[in-house]
Amino acid sequence: MGGYSTVLEQIEEETRPLAGRGEVAQYIPELAGVRADQFGMAVVTLDGTVHACGEARVPFSIQSISKLFSLTLAFTCVGDALWQRVGREPSGTAFNSLVQLETEKGIPRNPFINAGALVVTDVLCTRFVNPETALVEFVRRLSGNATLDYDLRVARSELDTAFRNRAMAHFMRSFGNLHNPVDDVIDAYCRHCAIRMDCVDLARAVAFLANGGVNPWTGERIVSESSAKRLSALMLTCGTYDAAGDFAYRVGIPCKSGVGGGIVGHIPGELGLCVWSPALEATGNSLAGSVALERFTTLTGRSLF
Amino acid sequence: MGGYSTVLEQIEEETRPLAGRGEVAQYIPELAGVRADQFGMAVVTLDGTVHACGEARVPFSIQSISKLFSLTLAFTCVGDALWQRVGREPSGTAFNSLVQLETEKGIPRNPFINAGALVVTDVLCTRFVNPETALVEFVRRLSGNATLDYDLRVARSELDTAFRNRAMAHFMRSFGNLHNPVDDVIDAYCRHCAIRMDCVDLARAVAFLANGGVNPWTGERIVSESSAKRLSALMLTCGTYDAAGDFAYRVGIPCKSGVGGGIVGHIPGELGLCVWSPALEATGNSLAGSVALERFTTLTGRSLF
Amino acid sequence: MGGYSTVLEQIEEETRPLAGRGEVAQYIPELAGVRADQFGMAVVTLDGTVHACGEARVPFSIQSISKLFSLTLAFTCVGDALWQRVGREPSGTAFNSLVQLETEKGIPRNPFINAGALVVTDVLCTRFVNPETALVEFVRRLSGNATLDYDLRVARSELDTAFRNRAMAHFMRSFGNLHNPVDDVIDAYCRHCAIRMDCVDLARAVAFLANGGVNPWTGERIVSESSAKRLSALMLTCGTYDAAGDFAYRVGIPCKSGVGGGIVGHIPGELGLCVWSPALEATGNSLAGSVALERFTTLTGRSLF
Amino acid sequence: MGGYSTVLEQIEEETRPLAGRGEVAQYIPELAGVRADQFGMAVVTLDGTVHACGEARVPFSIQSISKLFSLTLAFTCVGDALWQRVGREPSGTAFNSLVQLETEKGIPRNPFINAGALVVTDVLCTRFVNPETALVEFVRRLSGNATLDYDLRVARSELDTAFRNRAMAHFMRSFGNLHNPVDDVIDAYCRHCAIRMDCVDLARAVAFLANGGVNPWTGERIVSESSAKRLSALMLTCGTYDAAGDFAYRVGIPCKSGVGGGIVGHIPGELGLCVWSPALEATGNSLAGSVALERFTTLTGRSLF
Repeated sequence: MGGYSTVLEQIEEETRPLAGRGEVAQYIPELAGVRADQFGMAVVTLDGTVHACGEARVPFSIQSISKLFSLTLAFTCVGDALWQRVGREPSGTAFNSLVQLETEKGIPRNPFINAGALVVTDVLCTRFVNPETALVEFVRRLSGNATLDYDLRVARSELDTAFRNRAMAHFMRSFGNLHNPVDDVIDAYCRHCAIRMDCVDLARAVAFLANGGVNPWTGERIVSESSAKRLSALMLTCGTYDAAGDFAYRVGIPCKSGVGGGIVGHIPGELGLCVWSPALEATGNSLAGSVALERFTTLTGRSLF
Repeated sequence: MGGYSTVLEQIEEETRPLAGRGEVAQYIPELAGVRADQFGMAVVTLDGTVHACGEARVPFSIQSISKLFSLTLAFTCVGDALWQRVGREPSGTAFNSLVQLETEKGIPRNPFINAGALVVTDVLCTRFVNPETALVEFVRRLSGNATLDYDLRVARSELDTAFRNRAMAHFMRSFGNLHNPVDDVIDAYCRHCAIRMDCVDLARAVAFLANGGVNPWTGERIVSESSAKRLSALMLTCGTYDAAGDFAYRVGIPCKSGVGGGIVGHIPGELGLCVWSPALEATGNSLAGSVALERFTTLTGRSLF
Repeated sequence: MGGYSTVLEQIEEETRPLAGRGEVAQYIPELAGVRADQFGMAVVTLDGTVHACGEARVPFSIQSISKLFSLTLAFTCVGDALWQRVGREPSGTAFNSLVQLETEKGIPRNPFINAGALVVTDVLCTRFVNPETALVEFVRRLSGNATLDYDLRVARSELDTAFRNRAMAHFMRSFGNLHNPVDDVIDAYCRHCAIRMDCVDLARAVAFLANGGVNPWTGERIVSESSAKRLSALMLTCGTYDAAGDFAYRVGIPCKSGVGGGIVGHIPGELGLCVWSPALEATGNSLAGSVALERFTTLTGRSLF
Repeated sequence: MGGYSTVLEQIEEETRPLAGRGEVAQYIPELAGVRADQFGMAVVTLDGTVHACGEARVPFSIQSISKLFSLTLAFTCVGDALWQRVGREPSGTAFNSLVQLETEKGIPRNPFINAGALVVTDVLCTRFVNPETALVEFVRRLSGNATLDYDLRVARSELDTAFRNRAMAHFMRSFGNLHNPVDDVIDAYCRHCAIRMDCVDLARAVAFLANGGVNPWTGERIVSESSAKRLSALMLTCGTYDAAGDFAYRVGIPCKSGVGGGIVGHIPGELGLCVWSPALEATGNSLAGSVALERFTTLTGRSLF
C-alpha cells in the first residue's frame, strides 16, 4: 500500500513541470480563472486507504466526469432500456458534434458525448422531480462526502453559454429522442456539470466500479457486477472524448475526463483514482493528467491488458 | 483447466442453434460457398493445453484477422514510427469508408480498418521483398503450424473485386501516405486476407499477446510486454469494426474479427481463443461467434473489467 | 398576351391529372389538411395583365417562398454586409441539414435553406421592433394586396414543431451568427412562413425582380437593378432546395418553392408567375407545379438560356 | 459590335493589374511553369466577329473546360440515359471530394466535378475506340481550328499524379458506375484535360451553346435547342466548382472554368467568350478571369437575369 504513495510522489515530481502546459477551458469565466499550474492525484484502494499528492484536496468543477455518475444513476432507473435511446460506440468525432446525430437520426453514439449525456439527463428528468438534487445526493453517497454540492455560479454561466447543447437537445427532440422540455434538461445538465469535488472524493466515488458494483464504503449495491464491468468497458472505449483509443493504448484502464481538468479511473478489484490539472490537450483531456495516468500504469505495471 | 472444456461444451450446446443466422459474406464465391451453419471454438491456455469444440479444426479464410498479424509484424519493423501514418482511434464509421480519410488527410483512424491495414501492408512491402511470404512465415511461427498458407484462389478473387480498397490506396497515395505502387500493396493485402487457418491454430497464434509479447510455444519475444498490452488495447477499442464499443461492453476482452466468420481474442496472462461461425451480423462480425464470446466471459466470470 | 392564357389552359389540362401525386406536407395539421388535388397557376406580365387558371385565387401557406421576401427586405436593410453572415452557394444537402453548418462554422450556405433564412430573420429582428408586421407590410406593397396576412394557427403549429429550426438557431448562436434571442427569431420566422397568399398575389409580388428591382405596380424602387439580377441568380442556383440544379436544367428560370406547394418564378423583363399544387416530390417541391413550370418554359420557348 | 472591343479594352486596363494575384496550379510542372501575370480575353459574336485583348492568342491547358466538351460529346452519344449515372445538382463540396460519392453510392453529383467527368469519359471509352482522338476532333469542329491537339507532356504529368482521380474511378467502379478499366478511363481523361487552346478558339468552340445547339461556323446541329439550353443551365449551376452560386450572383452567365486559368462562357443568342489568366482563387477559378467576367456583364448590362 505504501507502494502507491511512493509512486504518486514520483509521478508528482515528474509531472508537476507539465502542469500549466496546454489550455485551460475558457468558455466560462469560472473555469478560465482557475490557476493553470495546479496538479493533484489520489488513489483509494478498496480497503479505504487513501494515497494522495499535490492539490488532491482542492475542489474543482467535475464537468463531464458527472456524465459517469448520471449514466450510472439513469442505468439504475431504466436498465438496458437506456440503450434504445443512446448507443455504446465511440463517436470518432468531437464531443459536441451534431453531424453523427443527423446521420444516425437523433440517437447519440454513446452516453459520454454531450448529446448522449443529454439523453441520460432526460431520463433523470423523467424519473426525479428534482434531477439535480438526485444526482448530487447520489454522488454524496458514492464518495461518502455529504457536503459536496454544485457551484451555482458555474451552473449559471454554463446555462448562459449552452447554445450548442441546446442545439443538440432541440435536434434530438426533433427526432423524438428527448421527452422533457429542453430548458429543463439543459438546466439539470448544467447543474450536474457544475458539481465541485476534489481528487480524493472523486477517487472514492468511482471505487464502486472497481468493487463489482458495490459501494465499498457502505456495502450498498449500486449496480450488478456485470453492469459494473460493462460501464467500465464503456469508460475505456468512450470515456476520454475522441482520444479514447489513445488512452486505452497509453494508459489501459477505464477513465472518464472533464474539461475542468479532472480524470477519474479505476483498476477492477483494486482501486479508484483521480488526477487533476486544469490545462488541457486539444482533445479536451488534462495534459498533465494524461501523462500522470500513463506513468501510473507503467510504474505499477497495472493495467487491464 | 478441465473447466474450459466444460464451458465450451455448454457454449456449443447453447450457440450451435444460432449458427447460420445472419449472412455469409457474398462478395467472392470462395466465401459465399462456405456452409453457413458451422461453429467451432478453441481455447489455448499458456501452458499449451487446447480446449476445443465443434468445427474447431476446419480451416477457414481468416480475412481481417490477418490485420492483427500484419500490424504486429509491421510494428516489429518500424515501432512507434507507425503511428505517424495511422491513428489509434475508433473510426465511428464503416470499415471501408473513405469519408474520414478525406477529412483527416489520408491518415486512417486505426490499423484495423481497411485503409489502416493498407498502410500497414505498405510498411511490409517496403521492408520485405516478398511481403506475403513474410506474413505467412510469421503466422506459422506464432501458431506453431508450419504448413499453413494462403489460398491462392481466394486471393485472386479478392484481387478481382478490390475496387474499393484500390480506391483507398490511391486516395492515400494522393496524400503521400502510401509509398509502394498501389498494385503491389493490394496484391500483398489480398494474399494476407486469404490465409487459411482453423480455430486451434488461431487461438495459438494470438497467445503471444496474452503472454506479455513472448511466443509461448518457442519462448521467442515478438514484441515488448508494454507493446503487447498496447496492441491488446487497440484490439479492444478497434478490433471488431464499428461494433467495438458493443463488444467491449458485452464481451470485455480484446478481439479481432474477420468477414470469414472468425474472431480471435485473449485474456492477458491466461489464454488465447478463437471462435468461428460464417454467418455475420450487419456489423460484419460473426453472429454466433459474438454470442459465444459473450457467453464465454459470462460463464467464466473472466474479462478485463 | 392572349398567348399566355392559351398556354395556361393547355398546362392545366395536361397537369391537372398529376395534382395529388406526391405527398402533402404532414408536419402540422393545417398543412396536412389541405386538399391534395388542387392546382392553380398565374402569370402577371409587367403591364399588369393577369393570366390565371385553376385554383389561382385560392390562398395557401407560402412557407419557404417567404424566404425570398425576407431576404429582399433584409437586403434593403444591410446590403452586401449580409454576405458576411450567409453564403451564396447551393448546399448540396437537405434544406434542414446541420452538417454543413458544423463544417462551415455557423455560416449557412445560402439564404434559402432554413439556417440561412434564420440569419436573415435575425437581421430583421435587429432592424424592426415588429419583424413579422414589417414583412407582411412589405409583401402587401409588393403584391398590391393590402389585406393579406399570416395565419396565426399555422404560425402556432409551426412554433410547436420547430425543434429542428431551434436546433439550428442555437447552433448558429454558438458560433456567434445569431444576435437576437432564439425564441424571438423563431417566432418571427414561423409567422413569416405562415403568410397566406394566392397564385395571383404571389405572381404580382415577385414581378419587381422581373422589372429590374422596381415595383411595377407603384413605381417604387425596391432594390437596384444589379441587386435584382443577383437575387434572381440566387433563386436559380438555390431556390428549390436540393433540386435547384434539376430545376435550372428542366425549367431554366429563377424559382423559389415552399412546402405549401407553391412555386414562384419570373422571366426578367417580362413577367412574374406562380404555380400551386399541394402534393410534393421527395425534394420538397410541388410535383405538379414542377411539371407545369417545365411545360411553361417549353411551350413558350422562354427561359434564361 | 465595336462596343465589345471597347469593353474588352477597358476590362484589360482594369484587370491586368490583378493578373498574377492568386496561385498558379502547382501539381504538375507544366502548369506550375506558366507565367502568372498573363491575361487574355476573347468575345466571338454569332456572326463570327472576334473581339480580343491581351494574350488572347496564347494557347494554354484547358483542363476542366474539357469537361464541357466531353459532356456534350457523351450527351450526343447516349442522351438522357446519361442522367442515370450522373446527377445534375451542385455538389456543395470540393471538386475532388469523395465524401458525397460514398453517401450517394457512386453517383457523382454532376458532370463537372471530377467524378462526374470520369463517368462521362467512361461513356466515351465505351463508344469510341480512341476516345482521346474523338474528343480532339470534336473540339476542332466546334472551334474551327483543325490543328489543335492535346499536349502529351501535360497528359503524362497528369497521369503520374492522378492518384485521387484513380481513387474516385476505383470507388465508382466498386459501385458499378464505371464500365471500362480504370486505367483506360484515366488515360483518356488526362489527355482531354491536356488539350491546348487559346481564348479565341475557346470562345468560338462554346458558341454553339449560344446558337441554340448549332455550330455557327458550319451550320451543323450539335445538340437540340432544348439540350443547348439545358447544358447551359448546368454550366450556370455547376460550372465553376464550389463557387457556382457566387459566379451566378456576380457574373450571371453560364461559365465553365479550368485550373489552367481559363473560363469560357456564353450569352444565349449573342456570343461565346473566354478569359484566361493563370493565377487562381482558392476556389480553383482564375482570379483575374472572374473579375473580368463580372466587369463584362456589368459594363455591357448583359446577363441572363
